[in-house]
Amino acid sequence: MESKEWSSGVWTRLHDVRRGSPLVQCITNLVSMDLVANTLLSAGASPAMVHSVYEVPDFTPHIHALCVNVGTLTPDWLPSMKAAAELASHLGKPWVLDPAAVSCSGFRLKACLELVELKPSVIKGNGSEIIALSGSGSQGHTKGADSSHESTEAIEAAKSLALSSGAVVAVSGAVDIVTDGKRVIGVHNGTKMMQKITATGCSLSALVAAFLSVDPLQPLEATVSAMSVFGIAGELGEDMAKGPGSLRMHLIDSLYRLDETTVLSRVKITKLC
Amino acid sequence: MESKEWSSGVWTRLHDVRRGSPLVQCITNLVSMDLVANTLLSAGASPAMVHSVYEVPDFTPHIHALCVNVGTLTPDWLPSMKAAAELASHLGKPWVLDPAAVSCSGFRLKACLELVELKPSVIKGNGSEIIALSGSGSQGHTKGADSSHESTEAIEAAKSLALSSGAVVAVSGAVDIVTDGKRVIGVHNGTKMMQKITATGCSLSALVAAFLSVDPLQPLEATVSAMSVFGIAGELGEDMAKGPGSLRMHLIDSLYRLDETTVLSRVKITKLC
Amino acid sequence: MESKEWSSGVWTRLHDVRRGSPLVQCITNLVSMDLVANTLLSAGASPAMVHSVYEVPDFTPHIHALCVNVGTLTPDWLPSMKAAAELASHLGKPWVLDPAAVSCSGFRLKACLELVELKPSVIKGNGSEIIALSGSGSQGHTKGADSSHESTEAIEAAKSLALSSGAVVAVSGAVDIVTDGKRVIGVHNGTKMMQKITATGCSLSALVAAFLSVDPLQPLEATVSAMSVFGIAGELGEDMAKGPGSLRMHLIDSLYRLDETTVLSRVKITKLC
Repeated sequence: MESKEWSSGVWTRLHDVRRGSPLVQCITNLVSMDLVANTLLSAGASPAMVHSVYEVPDFTPHIHALCVNVGTLTPDWLPSMKAAAELASHLGKPWVLDPAAVSCSGFRLKACLELVELKPSVIKGNGSEIIALSGSGSQGHTKGADSSHESTEAIEAAKSLALSSGAVVAVSGAVDIVTDGKRVIGVHNGTKMMQKITATGCSLSALVAAFLSVDPLQPLEATVSAMSVFGIAGELGEDMAKGPGSLRMHLIDSLYRLDETTVLSRVKITKLC
Repeated sequence: MESKEWSSGVWTRLHDVRRGSPLVQCITNLVSMDLVANTLLSAGASPAMVHSVYEVPDFTPHIHALCVNVGTLTPDWLPSMKAAAELASHLGKPWVLDPAAVSCSGFRLKACLELVELKPSVIKGNGSEIIALSGSGSQGHTKGADSSHESTEAIEAAKSLALSSGAVVAVSGAVDIVTDGKRVIGVHNGTKMMQKITATGCSLSALVAAFLSVDPLQPLEATVSAMSVFGIAGELGEDMAKGPGSLRMHLIDSLYRLDETTVLSRVKITKLC
Repeated sequence: MESKEWSSGVWTRLHDVRRGSPLVQCITNLVSMDLVANTLLSAGASPAMVHSVYEVPDFTPHIHALCVNVGTLTPDWLPSMKAAAELASHLGKPWVLDPAAVSCSGFRLKACLELVELKPSVIKGNGSEIIALSGSGSQGHTKGADSSHESTEAIEAAKSLALSSGAVVAVSGAVDIVTDGKRVIGVHNGTKMMQKITATGCSLSALVAAFLSVDPLQPLEATVSAMSVFGIAGELGEDMAKGPGSLRMHLIDSLYRLDETTVLSRVKITKLC
């Protein structure tokens, strides 16, 4: 069984995040800051929402990983994103790019393409975002932050983007897809209702950054692990939830309480090709 | 019974929001973004917190409705609010102005008056805000975002503002008032404790925008419906709540789960004059 | 018993906040706005997240207290912080400085030192922040918003900062420390899990501002009272919580419902020297 091969690694990485409490700098959108920080705290990491370009030179050298999310991008935020990304890459620290709603404007697409040039370790988006960023397909109608494509429709775009950028590419969806351009892994954890909570995608990107920091040489494995853990927390949360409001709360509680037995029994990961 | 005449329309509009998942652009204040987005998602709409003036020309043509809220206004946000409002009006898309805490400064009052010139479909505030914006009465002591007037004290101001602006004007309070300058409707749903949760008013404004998008030719009816639905969700939430923290969660859950029978039996709407 | 000497004063101040509903202006970080506002509302105060420098001259004269928090500082926010602090001091209104993550950059440290010059009534931080701001000890490794020092390690730094600044200095931790440079009081309420929720520290700073507004001549007593009340709400919340997600909700509910008997029986305050 493939899941069994993965499950102990997933648990070990979560355990290492809890033990090491990595400092994760997040330059993220205004909508998501609360949930992103609470997700990192619940997973045992230490969030730092430091986004001023004036603080990057002093602060970024101390971090263990960086997450950049363009969900509410304005031109004044871009220089700090670039400066932090460049410094992280230069110092060999892993960083994640979340191209949230990348196709909502030419300005945002251009900014994301420039960020891709700065060598993110992982690019994580939904199907529509990865397709738009890879330059494949017609962009067509944009739906803001929500995807109008299944993740599985984005596999070729993801592989192509991984090969051209050198990043591991993750596509969230009913099945999460993770690829380094050669291997394609499917993460089958998670629930549909998580999409009815704003900022769950952003929070997952930050969690990926935390997992990268404890296993920087295996970015595909770290990304797969973070996505499985977050999905399992969502599944446990949904068992207790009566709607997206309570799921948001139970998701955080479940992430905080997740134990080895539960992780080992619930990991659902398959090799897709 | 007046409520009975209204109730099926209220339900139909909620159903249409769920079915159509309208894309609602929100240029809203920094405090409210999380709850606004979660409210829209729970109601079945698709929120887009796109606020850069550089993104308005590309993005706003794709939206179904716009909500502008000045709750944490700074001069750099005003151009995008105006550009989006102007484009929405030009393209015939409905938009809502929430003049949050309008009387807290001359700067904010002037900005709101300029936004009113851009022809919002609906202006939604509390009693103090509508009185200040209509220019009636002495402003007197400001209390930030909280109202120092009952909604019923603002009926004449609301009618006058509706007639001068061409917008439907909604006044939130113990009884919500909605007027097009001639008809005055009272929505008696909701609970007092909702005022103890920050951003419920902002979230309601965004919900009004979503409802406008499915019934743009009847802005008064759409506004009344959104206010009734949000109030009913609050009533159901309060039955389960132990305070404002749990009410916030149950409100979202209830909005997500609201069914036809509950809506039909709980709508409380009356013609006030 | 020392706690008994304190407990009726703690209750009276909470009661006065509820009765007076003081208007508390918060110029706070982007992560914390939602929880800060909800904390103030649950305690009976009226939050106002007004942060534009263009609004300070009109608005700040109406407030009862101010809270300035540098958690996501950028240069464009500093002028309004300074203008509001200066005006508050000039008008004799109490204000709180929360030097969140002060040591994360030279820019932030310099800004905080300039804010200290504007005579805050209270400076409230964690051990690492107070040590950094007092200039004592080597800064060493920064951990973002989380403290790498116990509050008790910061007692001398706190006393020194209190004497040099004229402010009451509060250090949050397993035991909260409050000092005016002579007296040193320990508040033993609260729970460890509160640190796993983002913005609880920021929310406590805003609550201190609310308490200062009802007892401005006794800033040490007001600060101790706010810290005890917030800690008690956390203890009650944790009894019901299954993790940080539900604690966040129960904390707000508990603060809202706190009654005299519970406060009187749970206050744990001691004179440390």
